[in-house]
Amino acid sequence: MSYVKKLKCLLCGAEYSPDEVKYTCPKCGSEGILEVIYDYDEIKKHFSKESLKENNDYTMWRYLPLLPVNDPSKIGPLKVGWTPLYKAERIRNDLKMPNLWIKDDGRNPTASLKDRASAIAVVKAQELGEKTVTCASTGNAASSLAGASASVGLKNYIFVPKTAPKAKIAQLLVFGATVLAVNGTYDEAFDLSIKATETFGWYNRNTAFNPYMVEGKKTVALEIIEQMNFDVPDYVFVSVGDGCIISGVAKGYKDMLSLGFIDKMPKLVAVQAEGCKPIVDAVNGDGNVKFVEPDTIADSIAVGIPRNRVMAVRDIKQSGGFGISVSDEEIISAIKYLGSTQGIFAEPAGATGFAGMLKALKEGKISKNDKVVVIVTGNGLKDVNSAIKAGGEPIIIDPLIEEVKKIVG
Amino acid sequence: MSYVKKLKCLLCGAEYSPDEVKYTCPKCGSEGILEVIYDYDEIKKHFSKESLKENNDYTMWRYLPLLPVNDPSKIGPLKVGWTPLYKAERIRNDLKMPNLWIKDDGRNPTASLKDRASAIAVVKAQELGEKTVTCASTGNAASSLAGASASVGLKNYIFVPKTAPKAKIAQLLVFGATVLAVNGTYDEAFDLSIKATETFGWYNRNTAFNPYMVEGKKTVALEIIEQMNFDVPDYVFVSVGDGCIISGVAKGYKDMLSLGFIDKMPKLVAVQAEGCKPIVDAVNGDGNVKFVEPDTIADSIAVGIPRNRVMAVRDIKQSGGFGISVSDEEIISAIKYLGSTQGIFAEPAGATGFAGMLKALKEGKISKNDKVVVIVTGNGLKDVNSAIKAGGEPIIIDPLIEEVKKIVG
Repeated sequence: MSYVKKLKCLLCGAEYSPDEVKYTCPKCGSEGILEVIYDYDEIKKHFSKESLKENNDYTMWRYLPLLPVNDPSKIGPLKVGWTPLYKAERIRNDLKMPNLWIKDDGRNPTASLKDRASAIAVVKAQELGEKTVTCASTGNAASSLAGASASVGLKNYIFVPKTAPKAKIAQLLVFGATVLAVNGTYDEAFDLSIKATETFGWYNRNTAFNPYMVEGKKTVALEIIEQMNFDVPDYVFVSVGDGCIISGVAKGYKDMLSLGFIDKMPKLVAVQAEGCKPIVDAVNGDGNVKFVEPDTIADSIAVGIPRNRVMAVRDIKQSGGFGISVSDEEIISAIKYLGSTQGIFAEPAGATGFAGMLKALKEGKISKNDKVVVIVTGNGLKDVNSAIKAGGEPIIIDPLIEEVKKIVG
Repeated sequence: MSYVKKLKCLLCGAEYSPDEVKYTCPKCGSEGILEVIYDYDEIKKHFSKESLKENNDYTMWRYLPLLPVNDPSKIGPLKVGWTPLYKAERIRNDLKMPNLWIKDDGRNPTASLKDRASAIAVVKAQELGEKTVTCASTGNAASSLAGASASVGLKNYIFVPKTAPKAKIAQLLVFGATVLAVNGTYDEAFDLSIKATETFGWYNRNTAFNPYMVEGKKTVALEIIEQMNFDVPDYVFVSVGDGCIISGVAKGYKDMLSLGFIDKMPKLVAVQAEGCKPIVDAVNGDGNVKFVEPDTIADSIAVGIPRNRVMAVRDIKQSGGFGISVSDEEIISAIKYLGSTQGIFAEPAGATGFAGMLKALKEGKISKNDKVVVIVTGNGLKDVNSAIKAGGEPIIIDPLIEEVKKIVG
């Protein structure tokens, strides 16, 4: 059994036992997202910095006592997590930022951070005896759920906007998902998947609906903490769509704070594209999120109605962080910079956090000596067309040395 | 300093000290590939099963004493190797093969096994004080070299056939390589890169030309050995283009045999596409490789003039293994099977080894109870068009529950 004590509604504060409610708060409806509350005193008896040091499981499951898993035998086989945290020496030198770290979460099984949440989803679905799972996604949550489902044999129906990049749809199809490409936005796909869950009784993995997804995503922070030897950075930069990853990062740090493994929280910085920045505007304004029509190349964070808005805005404000937005050109330029300076290949949303960090530095919102972590959330192979915009075109030549000489000069 | 004793010509047996020769045997020319010979007695003093158990470096560099590295400070930052070796339970159950293992080497930094060789190439280039590196490649060696070069700041010129998949070219460009897309085959790109090396003095990473590439590739076998707790399988299935990976696998097992960590060699099985199977024909025939015009969807192994042919054929025959070829349809079908049954997404050449294993099983060349390892050499995101051939098309619907009902039935 897990150390989950209860589920608590973000809005009304009502508390439920984990087997009482499956998704959101029955009183508050879809806005009443439930937070998972643990028994930290009990966890401390089984989990310490020393036990971590002796743990040879280099996946997200090394943090099992902090995860909502009742039956560890249901954990899938794919190796999720323990992605590299790079010191990024060449970028440090170039930017004169001696304390910069980059977490490359594109190294997960289906090449995005979302694998962390989907890994939890397939455990919960199996614990409940469900045979079919579903989700709506801009692409990455979907491909991660399809991959995780394939690895344990769950049937899955996936709702994506028809405009999702080809590579993400290809992943879904190869993983054997039934892919329903919706003539509409991600927001419409989300609503449709909820209706389908009600209609067919499938297990739903949607972000900010299923209470356990933040728990999977928080493992990225748990890893960063351990990889930095329990030292807490000044800032963590995260690209934001629905706002679940940034709340996951907050939860990871809060867990470690509750356990006494760290002594403060980092400031969380939400980075969004200029063409879709409801969370950034809310954080920097009165805290209320106004919905928008997304217009950005960064498809993974093209979310006009951020489902985890209340929790995300709360977490960013509580941390003392801020929001910042970047243009599509700045995102494209960050892809090229990360690739050519450090060999890290990010998709647009994956490079958005870094683009935001560069802008915050330029605008004096952070300083060169600050200790900064940037999370890269997805691999560039997910969106080759954007990569080509970043990288340019190859030089076509005939197989003759004279042609090479002309280019080398 | 490394434990490399000498370089030995595959053809004439001439021996050289490592600082005497850079690429192939001066007497035999380009066919005289040099093999790296180690001082195993000396290695044994510093490297044991016990020292491995205590080593927390979960990358290919945990095998440093077995690698040709003089100056470990030149090792690049990207985390290469220690990719998952899956028990593949669902495939085991489906095929009734209780002893099947799948090594997913698409989990490397640039999403292919070639990262292992490129990691060595950038060390050697820096040790020699070189500022510019080059290679010819069907795509993966190139993107891995470009990524590794970016991570340490080496300029690079890359020769690829113009027909290389878009994703691989996009990676190269984002990593900041100068990409020369050759109007011709990989074989013509290879020859042109050698001429460019002679003309401009760049450091050349070509397979079966640079003696150290097999040394990087062998780490996939070193990992498999350790991940299987020093138990040796009956067969290892490997897709073959130039023949360098399969010779790398042979070298890894030979190293461990020389150290006394294992007591036998596995049988090596070369798998090629029916439209390009010079090594398979040679292994199953008189040992002589006849060049062909490649015609296969598996671009990474579309190699009509296999550069490492002599070594590869020798290694496969010595191991008691065999060659087997598969159709493009069988490759496409293996992509879908791996993805939908186990959540492993392979590019065509990545799934070719598995397709060969299925065929060998069907033809009775191996039996269900044999202990078998299959290496997946590259990630499916590298070639989305082939993935779509494998996966099919999504179902496009309007955002209405009635549309979903029609599909679910």
